[in-house]
Amino acid sequence: MSTVTVWNEYVHEKEDEQVAELYPDGIHEHVASVLAEAGHDTHTATLQEPEHGLTEDVLEETDVLFWWGHIAHDEVQDEIAERVARHVREGMGLVVLHSGHHSKPFRKLLGMPADLTYREAEERERVHVIDPGHPITNGLPETFVVPEAEMYGEPFTVPEPDRLVFVSWFEGGEVFRSGCCYRRGNGKIFYFRPGHETYPVYHQDEIQTVLRNAAEWAAPVEGSPYPTECRNVGEPAEEIDGYDP
Amino acid sequence: MSTVTVWNEYVHEKEDEQVAELYPDGIHEHVASVLAEAGHDTHTATLQEPEHGLTEDVLEETDVLFWWGHIAHDEVQDEIAERVARHVREGMGLVVLHSGHHSKPFRKLLGMPADLTYREAEERERVHVIDPGHPITNGLPETFVVPEAEMYGEPFTVPEPDRLVFVSWFEGGEVFRSGCCYRRGNGKIFYFRPGHETYPVYHQDEIQTVLRNAAEWAAPVEGSPYPTECRNVGEPAEEIDGYDP
Amino acid sequence: MSTVTVWNEYVHEKEDEQVAELYPDGIHEHVASVLAEAGHDTHTATLQEPEHGLTEDVLEETDVLFWWGHIAHDEVQDEIAERVARHVREGMGLVVLHSGHHSKPFRKLLGMPADLTYREAEERERVHVIDPGHPITNGLPETFVVPEAEMYGEPFTVPEPDRLVFVSWFEGGEVFRSGCCYRRGNGKIFYFRPGHETYPVYHQDEIQTVLRNAAEWAAPVEGSPYPTECRNVGEPAEEIDGYDP
Amino acid sequence: MSTVTVWNEYVHEKEDEQVAELYPDGIHEHVASVLAEAGHDTHTATLQEPEHGLTEDVLEETDVLFWWGHIAHDEVQDEIAERVARHVREGMGLVVLHSGHHSKPFRKLLGMPADLTYREAEERERVHVIDPGHPITNGLPETFVVPEAEMYGEPFTVPEPDRLVFVSWFEGGEVFRSGCCYRRGNGKIFYFRPGHETYPVYHQDEIQTVLRNAAEWAAPVEGSPYPTECRNVGEPAEEIDGYDP
Repeated sequence: MSTVTVWNEYVHEKEDEQVAELYPDGIHEHVASVLAEAGHDTHTATLQEPEHGLTEDVLEETDVLFWWGHIAHDEVQDEIAERVARHVREGMGLVVLHSGHHSKPFRKLLGMPADLTYREAEERERVHVIDPGHPITNGLPETFVVPEAEMYGEPFTVPEPDRLVFVSWFEGGEVFRSGCCYRRGNGKIFYFRPGHETYPVYHQDEIQTVLRNAAEWAAPVEGSPYPTECRNVGEPAEEIDGYDP
Repeated sequence: MSTVTVWNEYVHEKEDEQVAELYPDGIHEHVASVLAEAGHDTHTATLQEPEHGLTEDVLEETDVLFWWGHIAHDEVQDEIAERVARHVREGMGLVVLHSGHHSKPFRKLLGMPADLTYREAEERERVHVIDPGHPITNGLPETFVVPEAEMYGEPFTVPEPDRLVFVSWFEGGEVFRSGCCYRRGNGKIFYFRPGHETYPVYHQDEIQTVLRNAAEWAAPVEGSPYPTECRNVGEPAEEIDGYDP
Repeated sequence: MSTVTVWNEYVHEKEDEQVAELYPDGIHEHVASVLAEAGHDTHTATLQEPEHGLTEDVLEETDVLFWWGHIAHDEVQDEIAERVARHVREGMGLVVLHSGHHSKPFRKLLGMPADLTYREAEERERVHVIDPGHPITNGLPETFVVPEAEMYGEPFTVPEPDRLVFVSWFEGGEVFRSGCCYRRGNGKIFYFRPGHETYPVYHQDEIQTVLRNAAEWAAPVEGSPYPTECRNVGEPAEEIDGYDP
Repeated sequence: MSTVTVWNEYVHEKEDEQVAELYPDGIHEHVASVLAEAGHDTHTATLQEPEHGLTEDVLEETDVLFWWGHIAHDEVQDEIAERVARHVREGMGLVVLHSGHHSKPFRKLLGMPADLTYREAEERERVHVIDPGHPITNGLPETFVVPEAEMYGEPFTVPEPDRLVFVSWFEGGEVFRSGCCYRRGNGKIFYFRPGHETYPVYHQDEIQTVLRNAAEWAAPVEGSPYPTECRNVGEPAEEIDGYDP
C-alpha cells in the first residue's frame, strides 16, 4: 500500500453549489476516502495552505501525489511546481486528474502545453480499455460508460505516451486518449481524463477502480540510484592511454 | 534544403586561445559554413545580440535551429528559451549539440534536467550506429572514431528517446546515448553528443555528415494544422441527446 | 516519387456483384490508379499469379508494397510471406489496408495476431487526426467522416505503435487505432483501417489523400548499411589484453 | 514469488568439458537454483523431453519462462515455439538469455531476426545501468564488470525496446543493448545479454541479481481480459441509425 497525498486547488467546491453538493468536503477529501478504503495511507493538501501543503517534508513522505486543479493553475507558485516535478524525477508517482492536464507540474514534466478541445454538454462518454495488460485496468470490463461527461477531444498536445491505456468515445463525435502513462526519471505519471467537478464521476465504481489501481501502479519502484546532478568522474574505470588523473 | 539558424553562446572562442585557434570565427560560423556547403540557407545568432538574435521574425523564418552552449546557459533569458520551445512545438527543428544538453530550450522541451557524467581526458570515443535505417546515418560507416573527446557517461537523465541512433564507447569504460531523437508537438529534436570546444570535432568528416543529415531530417514536416490553444467546440459534429448548443 | 506495387488477393471482386460494381478491375487496380495519378510508378500483383506476383525481382524493384486481403490470407504461401517480411526489414515500405490486419506478412512482422472486434452495420466512422505533425496527415482536416464503414473495435492486439496517427470513432460506440506506424529493421510499416470492400471507401477524397501520403512516407530511407546476418568480428577495433586474433 | 520454468537446450554441457565443469547439472539447473534460493517455485525443462518439456499444462502453470539456447535452435519444433509465443501474449513472462536472441520464440514475438556481431576473445564487458528506475536494476551499482565475456555488438536487429535497461561496453571497442524490455499482448519479455556457456557468468553476484529481479518483473500482471480471437459484436452498445441487428 502507498502513502498518498491528494492535492486539490479547492475552489469550485466553495463557490458553486452543484459542486459542493457532489463533494461537500472537497474533491480531495472524496478521492482520499476512496483510496483510504483500499488501505492506502492518505493525506490531503490544498492551494490555500502554506506552500500549497506541499512542503519538502510532505513530498519526501509521499509515494504518490494525486492532482486536481482547474481554474487556479496560475496561482500555483512556480517554485512549488518545480519541487513537485523534482520529486517525480526522483521517484514519486503523479496521478493527474481531468483538468489537471493544464497544471504546472504536468506541463513542466512533459515539456508540452497539453492543449485539447472541450465541450460541456452532459454527453455520454464511453471509456475503452486499449491495453488490457496494464495493471491500471485490473477489475475493469473492456468498456464502461460515464453517463454525463465534459468532452475532451484530440489533438491532445502531449508527447506520445509510453503506454496508452484508455481511449474515450464521446456522444458528440470526438475521441480522446483518456489514460496516458509516462515516466520522467524514476517517477511514473498517469493522466486520467474523467472527473469533471459538476458530474458525479468520482462516485462511479469503475472510476474508483482506476483511482485505486493508479495509486498502486504509480508507487516508487526500487531500482538503482537516481543521479540528481552532473558529476565529473575524473578517475576512469578503464585505463586511458597517456592519461594520469 | 532548409533554412538553418546556428546559435552559439560564443564565449569560449573569445576567452580561450585553443578554442579560438580551432574556431577563429566561432563554432557557429564554422557549423554554418559546413551546412552552407551542402546547400542549406544558413544564418547565425549569438547570446550577445539583442534577444540573443532569436527574434520572432528569425524563428519564424527558421526551419532548423542548431544550438551550441556550455558555460552561459543561465544567461539565456527564460522568455527567449520559451519562445524557442514554442517554435519547436509548432514545427521548427532543433539540433542540440554536445554541452547544449544543459541548455534551457532542451530541458524545457524534455521536462528533464539532462544530467550525465563527464571527464576531460583526451580519450578516444567510438560512435556506433544503432539504427541504420535512420536518415541521420546516411553515408556513415557502422562505427567511427572521434580521436580526442570529452567523455559523457550514463545515466543520461532524459526521457527515453523516440529513436536511439548512436551509442558511444569511451576508452575509459563508459557508454553514452550519443544520438537521440524526440518529437515535441510538430517539431523534431535531435541531440548529438560529440563536439567539445577544445578538440577539432566539427572539422571531422563523419561529424559533418551527421550535421548535414540532421539539418535535412529536422526540417518541418507538412502535416495537418497544429493546435496552439485549448478550444471550446460547443457545436458537436454528432447529435447529442437533449443538447441544443 | 516511389515505385509502388499494389497487392490484392482479388477474390471478392470476382464473386460479389456489389464489390465488382465498386471496383470493376479489382481494388488493386483502383488503388494503383489513385497512386499513379499522384505520379508514382505503380504496378499490381495478385494471389493468383505465380509466386502471388511477388518474386524476388518484383520486391527488389518495389519501394512500397500496398497489401489488401481478407478471405484468402491462408492461401498466401508462407515462403512468400517471409520473403515480403525480409524485404521490409531491408528497407521496403509496407502499407497494410483494412482487413490486411490479419495478413501473414503483417502478423509475422509484428509478432502478434492483430485481432480485433468488428461489425458490419453500415455505420458512420469519424477518423480523427491524433498526430498532426505526421506527414501522412498532410492535407487532411482534423477529422473526417467515412459515411458507411465496417466497424473495427479495440482491443487491437498489436504492439504499441511507434506513432499513432489516427483514431476512429464509430456510431455504435467503439473506437479504434486506425493509423499505426511501425518500423521493422530499415522498413516502415503503416496500417490504415478504412477500406471495406462493399463500401466506396477508396473512392473518397480524404482516404485517397492518406494513400498518396503513405506511398511517400513509407519509401525506403537512405541510412547506413542494414546487417542481414550475424557476423564474427574476430579482429577487434580496440586492443584486447592478451588476445591475438 | 513466481512459478518459474527454466528451459535449456542442454547440449553444450554434455559435449564440452569446460562447460560441464561450470554447470555440471546444466545451465538450467544452475539458474533454477539461483531463483529457488530467492523463494521462487522453480522447474526445469529441456529440448530432449517430450514436447521439449513445454506442454500446455506446464506453460499454463508457468508465470515466467527463462530460455537458454545456442546451437540447437533449429531443433525446437515450430509448434512448440508458437505455443510459447501464445502463452506470452496471454500473460506469461519470458526471459531470454544470451544466445537465446536467436531462439524461435524470441524471433517470432519480435518479428525480427535479432542478428548481431560477436567475438569470442575472453574480453572484459562493462554493463552500465541506463534506466535506474527499472525494477530489474534493483540492488545493482551504476556499472559492473563481467571479467570474461563473449562480445555481442550492434546493430542488434530487433525492434526498438520499450525500455532499454542496460548497455554494455566491450574491451574490443563495441557496445550492445544488453537489457531490453518488450511487451507482446499481456506478456512481458526481457532480453539479457550476458551468459556465455564457457565463462562463469551465471555464478556472478550482479548477474544473479538481474536474474532474480527479472523473475519478479516478468510475472503476469492482473489487468482486464486479454482477447484471443476476433469477435463479431453485432449488437452495438450505442444505437446506429437505421440498423436493427
